Amino acid sequence: MDFLTDGSITTPDGFLAGTAASGIKDASLDVALVYSQQPCQAAAVFTRNQVVAAPVIIDRQTLADNKNSIHAVTVNSGNANACTGAQGLENATRVQEATAAVLDCQADEVLVLSTGVIGVQMPMEKVIAGINQAAQNMSTESGPWAAEAIMTTDTRPKYAAVRIELADGPITIGGIAKGAGMIHPNMATLLGVHTTDADIEAELLQACLRTAVDQSYNRISVDGDTSTNDTILLMANGNSGVKVGDEQSITLFQEALNSLTRYLAQQVVRDGEGASKFVEITVAGAEDDLAAHTIANTIATSALVKTAFAGSDANWGRILAAAGRAGVPFDQYKTALWAGKKQSRELHLLDNGTPTRYQEADAAAIFAEPEFKILFELQQGDGTSTVWTSDLTHEYVSINADYRS
Amino acid sequence: MDFLTDGSITTPDGFLAGTAASGIKDASLDVALVYSQQPCQAAAVFTRNQVVAAPVIIDRQTLADNKNSIHAVTVNSGNANACTGAQGLENATRVQEATAAVLDCQADEVLVLSTGVIGVQMPMEKVIAGINQAAQNMSTESGPWAAEAIMTTDTRPKYAAVRIELADGPITIGGIAKGAGMIHPNMATLLGVHTTDADIEAELLQACLRTAVDQSYNRISVDGDTSTNDTILLMANGNSGVKVGDEQSITLFQEALNSLTRYLAQQVVRDGEGASKFVEITVAGAEDDLAAHTIANTIATSALVKTAFAGSDANWGRILAAAGRAGVPFDQYKTALWAGKKQSRELHLLDNGTPTRYQEADAAAIFAEPEFKILFELQQGDGTSTVWTSDLTHEYVSINADYRS
Repeated sequence: MDFLTDGSITTPDGFLAGTAASGIKDASLDVALVYSQQPCQAAAVFTRNQVVAAPVIIDRQTLADNKNSIHAVTVNSGNANACTGAQGLENATRVQEATAAVLDCQADEVLVLSTGVIGVQMPMEKVIAGINQAAQNMSTESGPWAAEAIMTTDTRPKYAAVRIELADGPITIGGIAKGAGMIHPNMATLLGVHTTDADIEAELLQACLRTAVDQSYNRISVDGDTSTNDTILLMANGNSGVKVGDEQSITLFQEALNSLTRYLAQQVVRDGEGASKFVEITVAGAEDDLAAHTIANTIATSALVKTAFAGSDANWGRILAAAGRAGVPFDQYKTALWAGKKQSRELHLLDNGTPTRYQEADAAAIFAEPEFKILFELQQGDGTSTVWTSDLTHEYVSINADYRS
Repeated sequence: MDFLTDGSITTPDGFLAGTAASGIKDASLDVALVYSQQPCQAAAVFTRNQVVAAPVIIDRQTLADNKNSIHAVTVNSGNANACTGAQGLENATRVQEATAAVLDCQADEVLVLSTGVIGVQMPMEKVIAGINQAAQNMSTESGPWAAEAIMTTDTRPKYAAVRIELADGPITIGGIAKGAGMIHPNMATLLGVHTTDADIEAELLQACLRTAVDQSYNRISVDGDTSTNDTILLMANGNSGVKVGDEQSITLFQEALNSLTRYLAQQVVRDGEGASKFVEITVAGAEDDLAAHTIANTIATSALVKTAFAGSDANWGRILAAAGRAGVPFDQYKTALWAGKKQSRELHLLDNGTPTRYQEADAAAIFAEPEFKILFELQQGDGTSTVWTSDLTHEYVSINADYRS
């Protein structure tokens, strides 16, 4: 597998991207188009929030009708088109129509993604002018710019691609993602657009995307909040002429997609709002994987755990306390806790529910690292789960206290 | 009902309190004794965390054996005696024994409460010296000092009492509480000790306490984290000679207890770690009260909602987004949102899922207040719930990043 850190959604054959600074937000890029002349098979995972933005409602309907013939995706940042009522649905439809007009396809062959402020109607004149402008500068080099155009409080664009060799030839998968705030595991968190030139049916594509999301975007946490707009897309235009359908090709495709989405998801955590640390939390020995995941998530979203991380404080009691309120029964006198810089089993902190005779300085040294690992063991079974999280810093508060001002 | 803001656990007849600065933490008070020569009926609500501190384990056993004959409570701050294994259980038992020795009662007539750092063994010499010292200065005036001795990151002691007239005469209920961090609703959060000179059976006392806790301490949130030590106690020594047993007396007793616990719980939110705002959140029109409560809690614990409060930002879209991820189904196009300084229905922000034409300056003025109210309506049924929460500030991060250093 070739992992291309400078690759993106325009690396797979037949995909173009264009961008514009339409004025929805300041002077920065805020509209991105992703286009394939060949119609695409399309798959998507959406937010599970009860309150969903207009684009999510429109995209669900569009994919229900037309998942075998998607030509384009229009993404805007700066305005989420969420909590905008009937007007918001009409505006999302107008984005489809404007995109279809300029790209010479049907409105129901266009998907729409939005991210930004909630509860404000979209400035449609600007948005439509931006779509027209972006269509003029589309190219096979513009994927990274599209990654920049979908940013909100992100500090850097997130993009990558992977290339694998199947029996019938090479295929490429590319992706862009944005995150920063409202990031929480077990949901289709954030916006991610992925493309591939593989030839693969929509149903299979959907299954592969679901599996990949469960191992990547659903295992990260910045702040425990789930957005109204979260959408992960994957489009396959078949341009490589290489079919993904037999067991071996599916396995290789899945591995490559997992690798790409995990990389992008981890980039989202590393660039989480105010994040100064990247912490891997593994729960092992739980009754099953779901139990392990529930505990790992609860630790990863605890404000007290994350502020301790921010302070480089090896206050591991908070990890135990968070684990204990996850709603999963376990015997505290059978638990163990480990921490490490490279490997999680470097320093044994807790054994059978009792603190070991570790040196505080050794623990402090690990928690002072910009990246480290935590392992919590239950001695209940074989269930295991790993999640990635950031710390909760002063900067997180600053960003979110002042977001709209 | 006479509400006594300068009353406390020593206001009911027959209760004494004593305190000591034993050196568990710095030079401040860190040990409190509460004592009744008359044996007490006792009731308690404990944390639902799977990881529980040694005192919680000991108290559950003590109350199972002996809820009709409790004489004393020993509380220490500075060390939680949590995640301390077998040694921790032994130390909690030694606290019982030392208290019983100095107060001339049985060890299993003593309850033990601890709060502070997790994962460190108790400095038993200091603790026992503190118990002996506190026993020497016990008085009927020392309730407020006991409230101070149980503080951790609290900035002020929390105490009050209520006096009511029953058909057979007056009775008094007093309480002290501490909170600050690891505060989360739907659990017996924080430490609270309540006393009354009413004559009331332990089973009835327990039912009254459970009802009161569900309407007070279980409706507050500072940071969504639930402690390993949370305990709310209520002791009745019968010294007034006034029986609580018939329907009228129970109703009046319950109302008085509700009033006291709600006051103390709100004090905990007002003094939450780093809190600069006190926000009342009501969810109405839900399918039932539980659904309303689940949504209200999710809003009250959202990091994004609470940082918006900190920034005086009327970013109400985050309230909708938090409500939507509570796991309770509702139709977003039937929701309404209101805000106000004195009454929740002062400013209509959202109607049938669509922003109203309110003035941003009016919304900003409400969110800039140190206290305000939010009302979220669902049009689904008659379920309603009110919770109280604080904002998430820079100071919260400072306090928790540096707690142990």
